[in-house]
Amino acid sequence: MTETRKRRGRSARREARINAPIVHRPSLVMNLPVYDILDDERVELIHETAMTILEETGCEFREAESLALWRDAGADVSDQRVRIPRELLMSLIAQVPEEWEYHARNPERNARVGGRNMIFGPAYGTSTVVDLEGVRRRATQADLETLIKLGQTIPIYQYNGGYNVEPQDVPVAHRHLHMIQASVKYSDKPFMGGVISRNAAEDSIEMARIVHGADFVDNNVVMAGIFNCNSPLVWDGTMLEGMRIYAAANQCMLCSPFVLYGASTPVHVVGGTAQLIAEALAGMAMTQIVRPGAPAVLGLAPMGVSMKSGAPTFGSPEVALMMYITGQMARYYKVPWRSSGTKTGSQSPDLYAGYDSILKTYPAILGQCNWTTHCGGTMEGSLALNLAKIPLDAEQIENLYVMARGLDFDDLGQVLDDIKEVGPGGHFLGTDHTRTHPPFLADLQDNERYETWVATGSKDAEARGREGFKKLLARYEDDKPILDPAIDEELRAFVARREQEIPAKIVA
Amino acid sequence: MTETRKRRGRSARREARINAPIVHRPSLVMNLPVYDILDDERVELIHETAMTILEETGCEFREAESLALWRDAGADVSDQRVRIPRELLMSLIAQVPEEWEYHARNPERNARVGGRNMIFGPAYGTSTVVDLEGVRRRATQADLETLIKLGQTIPIYQYNGGYNVEPQDVPVAHRHLHMIQASVKYSDKPFMGGVISRNAAEDSIEMARIVHGADFVDNNVVMAGIFNCNSPLVWDGTMLEGMRIYAAANQCMLCSPFVLYGASTPVHVVGGTAQLIAEALAGMAMTQIVRPGAPAVLGLAPMGVSMKSGAPTFGSPEVALMMYITGQMARYYKVPWRSSGTKTGSQSPDLYAGYDSILKTYPAILGQCNWTTHCGGTMEGSLALNLAKIPLDAEQIENLYVMARGLDFDDLGQVLDDIKEVGPGGHFLGTDHTRTHPPFLADLQDNERYETWVATGSKDAEARGREGFKKLLARYEDDKPILDPAIDEELRAFVARREQEIPAKIVA
Repeated sequence: MTETRKRRGRSARREARINAPIVHRPSLVMNLPVYDILDDERVELIHETAMTILEETGCEFREAESLALWRDAGADVSDQRVRIPRELLMSLIAQVPEEWEYHARNPERNARVGGRNMIFGPAYGTSTVVDLEGVRRRATQADLETLIKLGQTIPIYQYNGGYNVEPQDVPVAHRHLHMIQASVKYSDKPFMGGVISRNAAEDSIEMARIVHGADFVDNNVVMAGIFNCNSPLVWDGTMLEGMRIYAAANQCMLCSPFVLYGASTPVHVVGGTAQLIAEALAGMAMTQIVRPGAPAVLGLAPMGVSMKSGAPTFGSPEVALMMYITGQMARYYKVPWRSSGTKTGSQSPDLYAGYDSILKTYPAILGQCNWTTHCGGTMEGSLALNLAKIPLDAEQIENLYVMARGLDFDDLGQVLDDIKEVGPGGHFLGTDHTRTHPPFLADLQDNERYETWVATGSKDAEARGREGFKKLLARYEDDKPILDPAIDEELRAFVARREQEIPAKIVA
Repeated sequence: MTETRKRRGRSARREARINAPIVHRPSLVMNLPVYDILDDERVELIHETAMTILEETGCEFREAESLALWRDAGADVSDQRVRIPRELLMSLIAQVPEEWEYHARNPERNARVGGRNMIFGPAYGTSTVVDLEGVRRRATQADLETLIKLGQTIPIYQYNGGYNVEPQDVPVAHRHLHMIQASVKYSDKPFMGGVISRNAAEDSIEMARIVHGADFVDNNVVMAGIFNCNSPLVWDGTMLEGMRIYAAANQCMLCSPFVLYGASTPVHVVGGTAQLIAEALAGMAMTQIVRPGAPAVLGLAPMGVSMKSGAPTFGSPEVALMMYITGQMARYYKVPWRSSGTKTGSQSPDLYAGYDSILKTYPAILGQCNWTTHCGGTMEGSLALNLAKIPLDAEQIENLYVMARGLDFDDLGQVLDDIKEVGPGGHFLGTDHTRTHPPFLADLQDNERYETWVATGSKDAEARGREGFKKLLARYEDDKPILDPAIDEELRAFVARREQEIPAKIVA
């Protein structure tokens, strides 16, 4: 199909559809001040603490190749323990790119990462869903595909795809294949790649090359993987292998300590954050030995831990403070920062889930988090995804996005005239300015009078979220992204071949 | 009863009780930076806009005595319209005290208002409750008394009492009597006074004098009233009369534009906030003509309005921005700022209620709001109070309180040693520091595993809130504040006499 014919077909569908087109939000650039909570002296103190941890305690790298890289680079390697002199570490971190373009297969969906830019995307990594019938069950590949379609329609997701859920009906060793295939087919936004094995990492890169061309991928970022460090201070072999593969291919690595504050860190916000920053920097630094300038991201998305249940917590004051500190330290190191958004420890989408979701997200916004994962639906301390909560959460991210765009001082003269004209005791509902500048109102908000609310079915947020989910999917059907049939076919062939080559039974 | 005998009786009860004593939180002093979103130039621009509004459009004062005060002070009075030259306005605002003590009948419960101090208190003014059985019904005097007892036990409420609900079983004209009597009897925290009529204002002052002594009241703040301005730019007669009575008696006036952003202001965050600041300043300035140095507060607690339903909204980006601006302008004028906390437009305590509650409260915290009303239970755009939501909300205020106390850099050396000792792959659950510094955990949070949660009854936040409410009331019974029987009797007699004197049937 030629480009012209494709366009014509698309615009014909556009004319026929009922729903308004989706207005995609670009990467957010804050127009409010970033909320820095540390003075310069304390920034230096936290830096000093992180450096001391890496110099004196060091970090374990549980992979021979990574240890060899560190040895050659001049670190003090003893067994698996790597102690990194600060000069070496900082010279490597200085090579991490501060800002770059995250390329989509549709260039209009490109996103900007780092510097003052902020992007948002879907949940990641749960194997349980609460579906639109309210049934809590294992996630499937069909769920994943539906979620990728949904993410395509959510205006605030600048990237999409990845392991939104872990499909339990696909063998672990094959999941990355179907995940990437679906991410590319059902969405034209930048996507996430597989990381949990050498196959997953290598195949992800190969599939990205099929979509974008090998040269393009070598010179541009089109994919990102989340690589977890096991706090405290352990990078395991699988992650390191994946990071070496991504770094060599110039694709993005979110170097993310998996942290329960108080269990895998001391119960000390400053000391604990310094430790996590040390871990993340150590991982990022290694990627720069592999390929200087590879897109590494300081991936600190802290969770707390309940000393009562041992389960993760998200809305706690300590988590918020850690996030504000991390953002400021990332700016100090001039590297992008990744964190997470609307997560909750709640088991149902209740009042507490709402508290947690905003408490967790607010520091990502005011702390200018460059990359916020998990912007919809994550429940039970990351173990389950509530589908109804996704559109609700996404609207709240949009709410904060609008806030972060800050103040408009235009039209102040006009507004003063309106105040004079309306005068004491009047109202502004009829002014031209009001008609042309409606305030932000989330679609799924309902603040009708109680009686009206009851008369229309007493729909709580969860009920409205289910409806919102279905509406977004309907919009998707009206405005599907088109994938070049040749690429579609090549991906299909690649997946089929790799399914034959990779035994389904091996773990990962 | 002598002071010694009282103490002995109290300590005997303390020994007998099961529950841990309540640890009351003092006024919060932020140890995080205040989040100022305006540069100096924009602060001046907003000031300039507010001054222009008062000079050119002016404000209506719908009371003859207030108009006479303004005329004598040198304002331009035409009909009920008062145009106030900026020099006059600012010379009056300069007399508003920046910081003062809010006295309780128990001096240990005194609170500090203004400057860097922040206080929090209960909901205000709804006539409907959703009770602990989930029944939505008219509020009663019994509800009010229960709420005042509850507020006494909530650690984060530095003041208490007032029209937590409007008891529908007490005649409007007598409500203030029973409200203040209950506020004093069931709580020893600073309380709120009546405002809705001359009787309400005068009787409130009289009752305060019974509790604290006339001289003390003349020289110290023991009570506060919320006085609403009808935006745009109208102060009505009842409010003005009340303000004159409170000002003359040196009691606190929260001068609070009642605002629906977009209806009673232009849809322009900067212009709208300038208008509201102008209104509040005009009211505050008038109180200073009555009595220079009377404790007036800039009472701006903005609400939005849904252009769909016409109902108020709380979690919107515009409301948040207005709050940040207002806090900064209050600091510019060196006057305390009052706003509101955990409000929502939701009709049920659902996910959305949680979003709204935090979105509305966060700017009060980071914007260093000196006085946050409505820190528990307010629903339906202020029309109903959900009792189960109160303890949950109050815990979230405490959560943000702990965050605002900021970072602790002590023990950093110890913590570094712990990291070295625990080393890569270990955990910190067993360190001395962890045992002695547990992270903040809200009592009503439940993030047990899903299976455990189901096995213990699938209690959502609302269900846990009901239990929390009952637990707090049980603590109240263990730790009741004692009221001097002579004062108790004098208040009783006053209430009885005034009930005879004030016809129950007149409005207000």
